[in-house]
Amino acid sequence: MKIYLAGPDVFLPDAVEIGRRKAGICARLGLTGLYPLDNMIDLSAGEASLDIFKGNEAMMIEADAIIANLTPFRGPGADAGTVYELGYMAGRGKLCLGYSNHPSSYADRVREFTDVNSRDGRLIDRHGLTVEDFGLTDNLMMIHALDLYGCALVTPRQTPADLWRDLAAFEACVRMAAERLASAHARTSS
Amino acid sequence: MKIYLAGPDVFLPDAVEIGRRKAGICARLGLTGLYPLDNMIDLSAGEASLDIFKGNEAMMIEADAIIANLTPFRGPGADAGTVYELGYMAGRGKLCLGYSNHPSSYADRVREFTDVNSRDGRLIDRHGLTVEDFGLTDNLMMIHALDLYGCALVTPRQTPADLWRDLAAFEACVRMAAERLASAHARTSS
Repeated sequence: MKIYLAGPDVFLPDAVEIGRRKAGICARLGLTGLYPLDNMIDLSAGEASLDIFKGNEAMMIEADAIIANLTPFRGPGADAGTVYELGYMAGRGKLCLGYSNHPSSYADRVREFTDVNSRDGRLIDRHGLTVEDFGLTDNLMMIHALDLYGCALVTPRQTPADLWRDLAAFEACVRMAAERLASAHARTSS
Repeated sequence: MKIYLAGPDVFLPDAVEIGRRKAGICARLGLTGLYPLDNMIDLSAGEASLDIFKGNEAMMIEADAIIANLTPFRGPGADAGTVYELGYMAGRGKLCLGYSNHPSSYADRVREFTDVNSRDGRLIDRHGLTVEDFGLTDNLMMIHALDLYGCALVTPRQTPADLWRDLAAFEACVRMAAERLASAHARTSS
């Protein structure tokens, strides 16, 4: 089983090393991790961003599953590129798994960024926009896509010391993907 | 042609009215707008968030196209639910259109939220994470999905006075969708 390794990990200064560690965990459990930085892109080329898009999309089409790192990135919610990719894989009927190293609810995290008040039974931010408040870790579209098309979002009990490099929740996703694969094989051969 | 009207518009205090205006623009141009709030959801029900997910997904499956409001929401980039939906529609091969009422580049908007520095030819934020810097309005996955599967992101020359209620860029998207429909019809009947 090939798994597309989505996440803002690619923006870390040690992005290549994180990708190697993730692919190593996949390999140890009998799976193949496909990491965006494995695509060779010439960043000085005029169409570098389009080349990255095409490389990522080709990897997603090749993959059977996605493990999305939905740890909040530069705001109260997940990285937009990763969220797009989760939607893309759900739309194509692939197995969808994800984790966040920040276990708090979305509403609680919005409170860290802006003033939030209750009005008429709704939470609203300082611009008057409703804050989604279902007790979920992030926007319901992502959370329920995982519930219905893979496994529930994996979160640690507590935020790990290194938010971006602790791979325990990631490894839990890989194990679930490997179990799915084993049970699918068992069904096919029975 | 049925168009799924995605966006954080549903979080506005006058969300229902915005939906009516968007559907009205679609109808005037011969198209049908499907707006998430048209689904009747009992928000007091225990599974309200799952009901919303299923309602939105059913609408997307019914729709031929999406117009995503990618105006920055609660941070430097687009609303996560909307981005998920754009990915989902791209994954299903639907026509993808989108607009943002904030014409500046993603990198410039990140500068409004956090310190950004140059290091080794890359832009990095104060956590050491790379800031995508291709001069695009948002994450390259969304921008190039629109380029390849619909029309380039529509932005106004200047941010309108009412960021959430100005529908000129939205209407430009509807016009492009109507033109696509007309030319597809012409091809079919020729």
